[in-house]
Formats: sequence, C-alpha cells, structure tokens
Amino acid sequence: MRPPPSLVISMLQVSDQLLKGDKRALSKAISLLERGDPQGSVVMREVHSHAGCAYTVGITGPTGAGKSTLIARLAEDFRGKGSSVGIVAVDPSSPYSGGALLGDRIRMELHYLDPEVFIRSMATRGSHGGLPRIIKGVVRLLDAAGKDIILVETVGVGQTELDIMGVADTVVVTLVPEAGDAIQTLKAGLMEIADIYVVNKADRPGADQMVSHINAFLTTGDSDGSWVTPVLATQAIDGQGITELSKQIQRHRDFLSSTSRLEERRRERRAQELLEVLEEELGQKLRERIDKEPRLNKLVEQVRRGELEPYSSALELLKDVSSPLDWLLSSSR
Amino acid sequence: MRPPPSLVISMLQVSDQLLKGDKRALSKAISLLERGDPQGSVVMREVHSHAGCAYTVGITGPTGAGKSTLIARLAEDFRGKGSSVGIVAVDPSSPYSGGALLGDRIRMELHYLDPEVFIRSMATRGSHGGLPRIIKGVVRLLDAAGKDIILVETVGVGQTELDIMGVADTVVVTLVPEAGDAIQTLKAGLMEIADIYVVNKADRPGADQMVSHINAFLTTGDSDGSWVTPVLATQAIDGQGITELSKQIQRHRDFLSSTSRLEERRRERRAQELLEVLEEELGQKLRERIDKEPRLNKLVEQVRRGELEPYSSALELLKDVSSPLDWLLSSSR
Repeated sequence: MRPPPSLVISMLQVSDQLLKGDKRALSKAISLLERGDPQGSVVMREVHSHAGCAYTVGITGPTGAGKSTLIARLAEDFRGKGSSVGIVAVDPSSPYSGGALLGDRIRMELHYLDPEVFIRSMATRGSHGGLPRIIKGVVRLLDAAGKDIILVETVGVGQTELDIMGVADTVVVTLVPEAGDAIQTLKAGLMEIADIYVVNKADRPGADQMVSHINAFLTTGDSDGSWVTPVLATQAIDGQGITELSKQIQRHRDFLSSTSRLEERRRERRAQELLEVLEEELGQKLRERIDKEPRLNKLVEQVRRGELEPYSSALELLKDVSSPLDWLLSSSR
Repeated sequence: MRPPPSLVISMLQVSDQLLKGDKRALSKAISLLERGDPQGSVVMREVHSHAGCAYTVGITGPTGAGKSTLIARLAEDFRGKGSSVGIVAVDPSSPYSGGALLGDRIRMELHYLDPEVFIRSMATRGSHGGLPRIIKGVVRLLDAAGKDIILVETVGVGQTELDIMGVADTVVVTLVPEAGDAIQTLKAGLMEIADIYVVNKADRPGADQMVSHINAFLTTGDSDGSWVTPVLATQAIDGQGITELSKQIQRHRDFLSSTSRLEERRRERRAQELLEVLEEELGQKLRERIDKEPRLNKLVEQVRRGELEPYSSALELLKDVSSPLDWLLSSSR
C-alpha cells in the first residue's frame, strides 16, 4: 500500500515541479489521483500547505447551453486581468466509449493558445454518479500549482449539479432562452445552487422573458436578502456579457470573503472530502476482498443466481459491523 | 440491528399483504427501504421468491422531453392489454426543497384513476448521485406485488441515464426535435444505453431530421447487428405513436427472452445490487462511528480546519484495511 522510499523521492520531485507550476507534473499528479495510485497521496500531502489561494467557479447547466464557449471567454477575461487559469471539464461519458470531450470543446473555443491556461477533462465513469470523487483533490492540485482561478464545468440536471456546490466557491448556472427546460429546472428546486444565473444565447427569442422569469422566481424565493442572485444575459459566442459575468463573480467572491462564509464553505468541503475518499476506498477494499475470498465469492454467486435475496443478504453480512469497525481506530494515529 | 420477533411477525404480515397486491403494504415496504429500516430486510427476504415475472422498462431523457406524458399513455396502453402496471419516478430533487414532483406529474397526465396503476416517486437526495441505491429493491417489491410491467422514469444526462441500464430490461431514451441537446448526447456516447429511441413532440419542426440523424448514427454504430435499435416518432400528448412504442418494447422483450440475454442482465443486476447495498451500509457505519469516536472526530476536525490534507489522511487511516476486513468473513455464514 505504501510506496517504497525511492518512489516517495520521485513523488517529492513531482510535488516540487508542480508547486513551480510545471504542467507535466500537474498532469502526472492528476493521473495518479485518477488511478487511485497511493503515490498520489504523497503528492497531495506535500502540496497541501501551498493550496488555498485559488478561487473556484463552477459552471453548470444542461447540454447545449453553450457552457464551453462561456468558459473559454471567461478564461480569456481572467487572463486579460493577469490571473492564471485552470479548467476542469467533467464529462458525463459513457462506460463504453469513454473519452473526454468537454475539455477539447473548450480548447477549440479559445481564441489563442495560452500556456497559462491548463485544461483537464475528467470522465464521470467509475464514480458512483455525479462528480468524480477525486475532483476536490484535482482542484486543490491546480490551486497548489499556482492557478488563481479554477473553472469547473459540469453538465446535467440532478446530482452532478448539486455536487458542484461541494467544489466551487461560486456556482454559475447557465440556461438558454427556451423556457421549457429551465422552468422545470427551477421548479425542481435546483435554483438554490446558483450564486449567479446566466441566460446564454441571449439573441434567441424569449431571452428577456427568461431573465424576468428567473428574477421573479428569485425574488419570491429570496428570504434572508444577504446575496441577491444576479441574472445575466450573455452571448458567449461573440463575448457579450462576459465582462459583466466576470464582475459579478468578483462581487460574489468579495461578498463571501467579507463574511465568514467562504471559509465555512471550504471547511465543510474538506471534511466532506475525507468522508468521500474513505467511503470510496472502503468500497474498493470490499470488492478486492470479494474477488479473493471463496466464501464471499460464493455468496455473490448465490445472489447472482437468484438463490439469495441481494438486499437482505448484504445487511445480514454486515450485521456485526459495529464491533469490527474497531480496526478503524486501531489504525488511526 | 436485527428486529425483535414481534416486529418480524408484523413484517411477515406486511409481506403477505404485499404479495396479494395490497397497495398500503407495498407503500410501507418501500418506505422501510427508503429509511434503511432493518425490517425492510425481512420483507425483502420474504417476498424474494415471488419476484421475477415483471418486465421493467426504463424511460429516460432530458427535462422537457415529455416523459411523464409518454409514461402515462404507455401505462394506459399496457392496462388496456390487461397488464398491471407499476411506475417509479426518480426525481432529481434539491437537498433543500426535497419533494417529489415527477410522480405527481404522471398522475395528472393519466386519463382516469386506475387502482391497478401504482405510482411512487423517489428522490435522488441522499444517494451519492444517479439512481437511489434501493431502486432495484423497490422494483423487486413491485414485481413481487404482482405488477406485470414496471416503468421507471429518470431525468438527466450522465450517470442517472447510465444507471438505468442497471435497473431496466428495456431502456427507452426520449428526445425532442430540437437537435442541439440530442447531438451532444449522442456524441457523448450515451447512445449505447438505448434499446429504443423516441423522438417525442414530433409535431415540432425538425422531428424527421432528428429521426434520420439518430438512425444514421445508429447504423454507423451498430456492429453485431443482433438488435437494430428502432427510432420512433411520438406525440405523447395526443397518444400518437404509443401503440408502436408498446409493440417495440414487446419486440425487444421477445428478443432478449429468445436469447440468454435477459437472464444474464438480471443476474448481473442482482450481484451489482449486493455490492451497492454493502458499500452504502459500510459508508453509513463509518459515519456513525465517526460521530461516536472522539479520535476519529478529532481527525475530521483537523481536516476541516485544514491542518491535515483530506485525501492522504483518508488513505492513511485505511492503510491497514486488508487485515481488518477479516470481520467480513467472520460474520458471513
């Protein structure tokens, strides 16, 4: 489990390079996390104290809302102000075809090749849905590598959108003027996740109504009055509204920083990440054990054949778990 | 953990009633699963041998595709053929507002109140994304209660759509003529999940092109030639195309049954469910333990404050896990 000393040394080199902003070291560290390689843990520990300066913006919304274009323009805006930018695009790819598309889409949208913009695609494949479990770690690596602004793109309605709250300091929900989707999204209660709304493709019919509709909804919903969620109209394709969006992100950042909310959000996020990694690893250990142990293997076979009921068999297997979890304590420092 | 004998007896009564098709018993059993009540385990074990006759159809697609209407019409079609129908609507609801909307939408769409149609909404809230972990159990309860056809509605692009393959015998992907969303969906590799495509709201402009587009895509992608995925145009709102959809579902069922594929799918699903429940329960135990143990609690606090790095702290805590997982074996029969 624990890497040998020589690998630790090489990981310390990776960490050093990463802290200097080296792209190859950054890519390598992210790949270690993706593979669940224990060496990734060495890097994470090394760079930890250097993270904490970056600001993370989540951009979410349905497919076709123009998020990739919006992110490319936003990245250029931040670059123009002298900030370095990291982009993580989370791709709801199939378990079959795999692949990573969103990142490539953003690359194509960028007006010029900028060495200070680091783009990484990550597939949701392999995670239990929603965002990949290691996304918080990836954002922290970008942070430690000196990125000032980290943009995280996610697609979809439902869990993935909710998960973005656990990653981003500011959440931008992007919609298009066609009202059908949006109204349902709002009704489904997903509106609470947005710190800023963007109605993109604002040249399309219905954009004004859409903005009014969301505003009306927000006014009704806003009770404590501390942050009034702005609703912006943009046309990312020709850069319209991007300056205003960038300004509102800064305004939200100032708002969070002026209260204790930013630090509170980040504290909860760290505790949450610990739990997520623990759960993921426990599940992994469980699967490895089942593969190795004939007795567990037999149980799985009986369930597979329908001789035993899955749900009750699982609970039966774990019925004594409160005492066996003692190992957790004995192995903690 | 294990319920006392008197509760077991009352659960046997619930099971008996459920097997007779009693709706209250069915609702109660589902609620037990939702709450993670150990009594649910008793019911699951009791009714297990009576499940296996139902056929499960998953209906998925983006919001605004008219899935609720489609499901209502489809339910009526199956009822007209004398089949009993169960509907499970999985709602991507917010962790704040909660609630259950899709099921209500379907109810409103039904032309008449039919006691043989059982509708249940389930929130994705509390699950780690995608479908709720207990959904396979809920489908099995409906199966044991004598439902011939079980329709499962899910929303969204990404994990939830992929998860539906783990629940449904036949997966129907529903799209609307507006091409933007669909093309991206296809490109993202989500096409592999569909056994049948439906282009709903086919009166809108672009429906024919959409059908052609998907067909072209499928012809390219189809290699083994065993099941040619049909692409249907429907107008669920006035029932157009529903008979054909119902026929194609039956055709796919016949196809799966004529080979060993149906049984293979179901076997994998059962094994998968065992693992999912085990993982969920392990995570639950872990959280309970952290709440109770000052030492673990302290670790979480240190991570929360940023003194320790979350990812490496989690791995460090679990570094001796291969031996402690012995408990799993000692508690299995």
